[in-house]
Amino acid sequence: MNALRFHGQNDLRYEEIPIPQVGDGQVKVKPAWVGIHEWHGGANLCPTTPHPITGETVPLTFGHEFSGTIEEVGKNVTEYKPGDRVAIQPIIYDNTCGACADGLQNCCWSNGFIGLSGWGGGLADHIVVPTSTLYRLPDNVPLEIGALVEPLAVGWHAVKISPFKTGDVALVLGGGPIGISTILALKAKGCEQIIVSEVSKKRQEFAKTFGAHHVVDPSKEDLVARCRGLTANQGVHVVYDCAGVQAALDQAVHATRPRGCIVNIAIWEKPCTINTNDFNFKERMYMGIATYQVGDFQEVIDALSRGDMDPKEMITRRIGLSEVVEEGFRRLIEDKDNQVKILVRVGGG
Amino acid sequence: MNALRFHGQNDLRYEEIPIPQVGDGQVKVKPAWVGIHEWHGGANLCPTTPHPITGETVPLTFGHEFSGTIEEVGKNVTEYKPGDRVAIQPIIYDNTCGACADGLQNCCWSNGFIGLSGWGGGLADHIVVPTSTLYRLPDNVPLEIGALVEPLAVGWHAVKISPFKTGDVALVLGGGPIGISTILALKAKGCEQIIVSEVSKKRQEFAKTFGAHHVVDPSKEDLVARCRGLTANQGVHVVYDCAGVQAALDQAVHATRPRGCIVNIAIWEKPCTINTNDFNFKERMYMGIATYQVGDFQEVIDALSRGDMDPKEMITRRIGLSEVVEEGFRRLIEDKDNQVKILVRVGGG
Ligand SMILES: [Zn+2]
Ligand SMILES: [Zn+2]
Repeated sequence: MNALRFHGQNDLRYEEIPIPQVGDGQVKVKPAWVGIHEWHGGANLCPTTPHPITGETVPLTFGHEFSGTIEEVGKNVTEYKPGDRVAIQPIIYDNTCGACADGLQNCCWSNGFIGLSGWGGGLADHIVVPTSTLYRLPDNVPLEIGALVEPLAVGWHAVKISPFKTGDVALVLGGGPIGISTILALKAKGCEQIIVSEVSKKRQEFAKTFGAHHVVDPSKEDLVARCRGLTANQGVHVVYDCAGVQAALDQAVHATRPRGCIVNIAIWEKPCTINTNDFNFKERMYMGIATYQVGDFQEVIDALSRGDMDPKEMITRRIGLSEVVEEGFRRLIEDKDNQVKILVRVGGG
Repeated sequence: MNALRFHGQNDLRYEEIPIPQVGDGQVKVKPAWVGIHEWHGGANLCPTTPHPITGETVPLTFGHEFSGTIEEVGKNVTEYKPGDRVAIQPIIYDNTCGACADGLQNCCWSNGFIGLSGWGGGLADHIVVPTSTLYRLPDNVPLEIGALVEPLAVGWHAVKISPFKTGDVALVLGGGPIGISTILALKAKGCEQIIVSEVSKKRQEFAKTFGAHHVVDPSKEDLVARCRGLTANQGVHVVYDCAGVQAALDQAVHATRPRGCIVNIAIWEKPCTINTNDFNFKERMYMGIATYQVGDFQEVIDALSRGDMDPKEMITRRIGLSEVVEEGFRRLIEDKDNQVKILVRVGGG
């Protein structure tokens, strides 16, 4: 079968590999649609020594945001059958550490991801996964939308474990894919004042499309003053940092009310600096977010099925598996502002 | 009367000033004992332009940790009488901003402190304060201990608003006065595993005296390994940073379990650096703490009266008002390791 595999820095290869065999408690899935995100050539989560759980090392198949159709079920699999449409929750965890015992598989001390750390990936003609990774898609949720469950679960999880309450004012830093995922989750959870800070004109429009109530260009307007102005001078309750930029964080801290919280979802390229006095004098909080937990995928699928979130405009382009490097990753950098999610059609549907 | 006043950088003067007159809803207090803490010549909270609430500017009387005896009560004061023994809660707030409306007077957008921002201070023969600042001392709480209520309230508040629960393992960075205040609060609130990180031999002993269960010298032992070893490899639940040192914070982050929290009580001399990945991958939290809230002084006094905290060994030296600069502030720097709290006897008792 064909697969897109990561061999090392800047070395992605579209190549022929053996079809995986289905084992006990596993299913073979034909990936349908696979989302890709901005990629700069590296892959810190791809193990170069055997991963403690999968035992695999590079080369490894990419693709952790995907939906698919079950092709074959292994022994002892009774709850799924060929033809079932599913989204795959890609966290690999050991179920033996204290984090797993606390229900925090996303913080597992040995964790990894399907599509990064072994067990195959979505960017291949077939993948074999344990049934614990599967979430059934209702009839009214198409496979294309199923490929968005993963990125949507990131924003959903962040809003869910943050101190956000209905009635709170939220500030989202950055209108890229994770920013939009966060906006959709906030809307679904009843937020009536979403402020988005974004410099790109095109991304400002996307933010509005998905439900931002106020869009601020921090290069042209004083973000702190605007946030205070919208909150009787108190500042916002929660900030979701989906940008990972020091200047934006600095403004966001001052835009946050006493006891407010800054939630970091962004992957930063370098450590960030915080002025501890700004946290102390106003008893502000900062928290980091790791992907999603058990429960989040189902909640996202339910919200999609009910129509509480409508993410289909996030899909800005569809490409084939052989085009991922040129038409996918390159475009996500060179045409960044116009792209939210590029989906790769494997099985389609 | 005599007072110790801050005139500017490194300029503290023991001088004669007029006795303040008591007004409506106010009382005149004879300070009994006044705590002082490490001071390096500056006073960021002393206003050089009129403070929005007090209207005062430097020179200003120092002293915000103190007990005293009421000498005179103003009109409309019925709940206090001369001779009453009190501790003074020194936060000055406007009661009009959103923080105050939320009960967060400690985060008031205009806040200040008695003994720093006007309305006099404890380091004077007399002070006039509104009755809202007064907390009555029970018969079994001596005036000396009353002067410790303020620093004890800082640790108490930090533990109270942090996610600490009975059964949790706590790590305290630094065995100085605020570290000890935090240890005492943790003990009073039932913490059975307090780990203290401290390099000074003498402060290590203090930490043990006040109830630390494990004392680690991070210059000689791997603090992260020790904390993990004491917690089935998971890390501590809560860290209280009473040191404000980058290297200690870096270790503390790795010593914290998934969803654990780092509580900053320290005043840092410069911004700190955090590695956002360490917060994201384990969903760790960081929060800042501002002094204490309404409720904390009374809870500390009640805990002292019940015997749940015994801080008297914190008083390592007693001096007179005229000796504050030479025997107080200088000694707190030069003889730092041997001193926890130096109390200034004004009225005594
Ligand atoms: Zn685990
Ligand atoms: Zn206020």
